[in-house]
Amino acid sequence: MAQVPLAKKMSEEQSDSKRQSVHILNPHLEKMDEDILYHFALGTGTHDFPAMFSDVKFVCVGGSPSRMKSFAQYIAVELELGDSKTDIPNICAGTDRYAMYKVGPVLSVSHGMGIPSISIMLHELLKLLHYSKCSNVTIIRIGTSGGVGVEPGSVVITSQSVDATFKPQFEQMILGKTVVRNTELDPGLIQELVQCSKEINEFNTVIGNTMCTMDFYEGQARLDGAFCSYTEEAKIEYLKTAYEAGVRNIEMESSVFAAMCNISGLRAAVVCVTLLNRLEGDQISSPHDILVHHQQRPQKLVGFFIKKHFSNPGMSF
Amino acid sequence: MAQVPLAKKMSEEQSDSKRQSVHILNPHLEKMDEDILYHFALGTGTHDFPAMFSDVKFVCVGGSPSRMKSFAQYIAVELELGDSKTDIPNICAGTDRYAMYKVGPVLSVSHGMGIPSISIMLHELLKLLHYSKCSNVTIIRIGTSGGVGVEPGSVVITSQSVDATFKPQFEQMILGKTVVRNTELDPGLIQELVQCSKEINEFNTVIGNTMCTMDFYEGQARLDGAFCSYTEEAKIEYLKTAYEAGVRNIEMESSVFAAMCNISGLRAAVVCVTLLNRLEGDQISSPHDILVHHQQRPQKLVGFFIKKHFSNPGMSF
Repeated sequence: MAQVPLAKKMSEEQSDSKRQSVHILNPHLEKMDEDILYHFALGTGTHDFPAMFSDVKFVCVGGSPSRMKSFAQYIAVELELGDSKTDIPNICAGTDRYAMYKVGPVLSVSHGMGIPSISIMLHELLKLLHYSKCSNVTIIRIGTSGGVGVEPGSVVITSQSVDATFKPQFEQMILGKTVVRNTELDPGLIQELVQCSKEINEFNTVIGNTMCTMDFYEGQARLDGAFCSYTEEAKIEYLKTAYEAGVRNIEMESSVFAAMCNISGLRAAVVCVTLLNRLEGDQISSPHDILVHHQQRPQKLVGFFIKKHFSNPGMSF
Repeated sequence: MAQVPLAKKMSEEQSDSKRQSVHILNPHLEKMDEDILYHFALGTGTHDFPAMFSDVKFVCVGGSPSRMKSFAQYIAVELELGDSKTDIPNICAGTDRYAMYKVGPVLSVSHGMGIPSISIMLHELLKLLHYSKCSNVTIIRIGTSGGVGVEPGSVVITSQSVDATFKPQFEQMILGKTVVRNTELDPGLIQELVQCSKEINEFNTVIGNTMCTMDFYEGQARLDGAFCSYTEEAKIEYLKTAYEAGVRNIEMESSVFAAMCNISGLRAAVVCVTLLNRLEGDQISSPHDILVHHQQRPQKLVGFFIKKHFSNPGMSF
């Protein structure tokens, strides 16, 4: 391996930590006069992206549009940029595919359910951040999940996203061929989030592998779908094998999220609460107020993390 | 092949045509006291499904909740069950995952974007139809798609859904293993829909294979995603190969839809309008009013089909 002079290396690192842009790996985009982000109902020809978004430093994404609106309202209070009744407009009001809210340097975006849905959103979000000339952006998925061997209400911070055979990879089809992508997440960011959870000291938080599946029923070994061809024993055996492989929760978006953030050079984390322990059941049958309370935990953790960054601007972005 | 006595065969067929229930292949469901359809915010313990849904004969599904509300309003007018301003309540108002509207015997349900999202919806919908004791249900996906070698605004009725390698199959992961399912659609229903399109005589309608992909950008050979590692020539070559394999449009839900409807014994069709011709570009840049006009075509075709069934009740259900 060629030696890099230390001074040059340090200078590069400093420069990197000062300004890390969003990597867009697509030479074709330069040839386009205008780029329509169809599923956001936004476009470079109709919207001034740098004016709208250049100050964005944190992007939080989650499945449900109403939860992402609540998160925006919550963060407005935390950052003292509004009160809980502040009406924050939906930037993607021209479509019902996704919803997007901005509060100061924080963008809150919904992504629907499943890998394809979050993948469309991320392609358009990454281009939006790129056109807006954003730098040093951290992106965190805050979501819900099924737990494996952890108490319901626990928060799992994902170390790596694994597929249904417990491999830390995402398979992307390109022109009919499979390309394998890496699904590890940023270890430094994980540790910062764990530290925040310790400081909050209100709920159980664990670091673990997250299994990302293509469906909620058969793909997650549930017994309560419209179809089920396996026994309860086979289900439990599969989930115990997952546990032994380090899996602590199961959801449906983390693999492509990790893969795409890795390629684009964004610091990324996945923080999901577990709504049930899948070793004990399949149905999400906790009372509504308990579910709502649990669903607020990833918001609370990530809100605390963001607030800490702004009260301590010397911390890395 | 063993001979089946003709009288017995005819009697079975008549009985089938009289009452074809929704097949639920899951022995575990019988053991449950209550079934919570979590993503619909409905449950057998809290809702009287037969009272709410037993008369349903047609289910129309599409990605966007607002489009499925419009469809419900449109069908209310067509079946003379309301006017275009009738407020039809969202049956799934307790969640923002999916939206569901009922107009007489027609259910209109949104499914979000992508295979995982429609798969969750279908598991819960099939159970809902089963618990409601519905019979002889026809289900049609009305959607948007990218065309391949057909004029924008054309309507494609899917003969079979194919994957990114043009195989008519859907791969379902179960306990970490791949199970391959058939994605052909009902030939009789296709012909009935083609006949309706001829009678409407307002837009180009073709029967073709529909390629169902896991994402909108790299998986559909687009040049305008955040990442693109191939040339325009390679893209065109891939799409031409798709055309030669009978593909006339590309979308993101048809394979699991066909596979699940096949297993459950529902008559199913996929009717999508093409918003652009992918051999000529990637961006959906038609004026808004043209897009809205084109998006109404599948609604119009399927509305005509449903109305025809009710004016001619001797037709098969």
